[in-house]
Amino acid sequence: MSSEQDEREARLVERVLASFDGTPDPRLKELLRSLTAHLHAFVRETRLTEAEWQAAIEFLTATGHITDHRRQEFILLSDVLGLSMQTITVNHEAYADATEATVFGPFFVDGSPEIPPGGDIANGAPGEPCWVTGTVRDTDGDPVPGARIEVWEADDDGFYDVQYPDERVAARGHLFSGPDGGYRFWAITPTPYPIPHDGPVGRLLAATGRSPMRASHLHFMVRADGFRTLVTHIFVEGDTRLAGDSVFGVRDSLVKRFTTAPAGTPTPDGRDLGGSTWSQVRFDIVLAPSEL
Amino acid sequence: MSSEQDEREARLVERVLASFDGTPDPRLKELLRSLTAHLHAFVRETRLTEAEWQAAIEFLTATGHITDHRRQEFILLSDVLGLSMQTITVNHEAYADATEATVFGPFFVDGSPEIPPGGDIANGAPGEPCWVTGTVRDTDGDPVPGARIEVWEADDDGFYDVQYPDERVAARGHLFSGPDGGYRFWAITPTPYPIPHDGPVGRLLAATGRSPMRASHLHFMVRADGFRTLVTHIFVEGDTRLAGDSVFGVRDSLVKRFTTAPAGTPTPDGRDLGGSTWSQVRFDIVLAPSEL
Repeated sequence: MSSEQDEREARLVERVLASFDGTPDPRLKELLRSLTAHLHAFVRETRLTEAEWQAAIEFLTATGHITDHRRQEFILLSDVLGLSMQTITVNHEAYADATEATVFGPFFVDGSPEIPPGGDIANGAPGEPCWVTGTVRDTDGDPVPGARIEVWEADDDGFYDVQYPDERVAARGHLFSGPDGGYRFWAITPTPYPIPHDGPVGRLLAATGRSPMRASHLHFMVRADGFRTLVTHIFVEGDTRLAGDSVFGVRDSLVKRFTTAPAGTPTPDGRDLGGSTWSQVRFDIVLAPSEL
Repeated sequence: MSSEQDEREARLVERVLASFDGTPDPRLKELLRSLTAHLHAFVRETRLTEAEWQAAIEFLTATGHITDHRRQEFILLSDVLGLSMQTITVNHEAYADATEATVFGPFFVDGSPEIPPGGDIANGAPGEPCWVTGTVRDTDGDPVPGARIEVWEADDDGFYDVQYPDERVAARGHLFSGPDGGYRFWAITPTPYPIPHDGPVGRLLAATGRSPMRASHLHFMVRADGFRTLVTHIFVEGDTRLAGDSVFGVRDSLVKRFTTAPAGTPTPDGRDLGGSTWSQVRFDIVLAPSEL
């Protein structure tokens, strides 16, 4: 490349960065300068062709058009590029023994039903019953009562309720930790499933030879006044997909042992499961303070 | 930041980049590795918050939802970040005296009407008539006959036909250079106009204190066998918006003198303009060879 060409490209970057000089919000200015500088570097380093630029525009357009209030393809895109996990990592720096965070995912919806202690979030979602217990504590080991625990998961067929053709709510709910910080509820044993891969993000994964499968997991979001909100999953020990999780969400500390009880084994709360097998898992949650 | 935190973030980047190792197409692999590395660097450098990440997802979603076959907000976004102009710059390196390229813009549509030599592309679009003439030549100075010259522009109110509420085609057309490389047609004198700023990109410009106005211009796309396709504009000498063009499209070599004829001045081709003023401009086009 001629030095004239190099200077022409560099001057353009400077002009664009300077166009943000009048931004009243200094943080917005910082974000736009960094993002713009990196995107220009990408175009210059790769010598992006006009056909590739056009393909990128078309990819983003298709991603926008498949996105609606029940499907968020931009979050999926962020997920499969590891950007969601990097954002989580940056914002949840290690603190004492606080539980590690992982990706939020595109399937959370506000307004889940409240279930009583020991209740069942499944609401008819197919899957093996799973008894989930644990405590919510702070990093001093003291119980955190009244923490709002949101849980959601895919059913045995790999679908979240928002992917059902009807408006049914299933395998989703929230409850509160008790005075001793304890909680317990019925869910279903997590199973692996693909992220939605019939759209642009699925085509991207196919083009890169990557699997759309996620390691089996159960989502948690735990909120309590004075504490950093925890968004995390628990994963299933022994799952062969832990290493290749399509959204880079697995952390060793979040892999838990799910023990399966033979058919007919009495349940901890006396619930009659009609002779089905069931599993149980314990997940003790430690919240970091909100002001670090 | 602790070195442990730094390593955790860097390891995540490595895992994501390694996930592209199985990509069959080496160019796609290169593009994804570069883009992903830059986006992770952006997140890490700025310590992007989760609320900012969420705002970015919402911005992209809104950009997708306003985009349809007549409005391309992703191209506008690329334009106002200077990425369209950088892509053009990278792909149209200086070559002898070949005419410089500039941004394509979101308003081109295929299938414009053909007009005969000396015809009028306006088709009723409001504006002062403008007589445009020039030649198409190669970098040796030899004429390029039969070059397909696509022209399109906003009307006097700042609207392209694709922004009209009906399906009318106006201020858009194509013609071919003659045996001597010459061309001539009627258009309308370009006037400044804002890029569409009632959407997410407009909100971005407002938040950064930038004007949505484009310097006045007339679009050209010139195609001929054996030559690099030229996408460019001509700009109007003396326009006060040349320096602050919202999409960074202005190049000095593309600024042309538009001379205005007093009302009643006879036109070059004898056309009766009913006493209107009219302007004229000359634009001699030099095409680079397609194989450089």
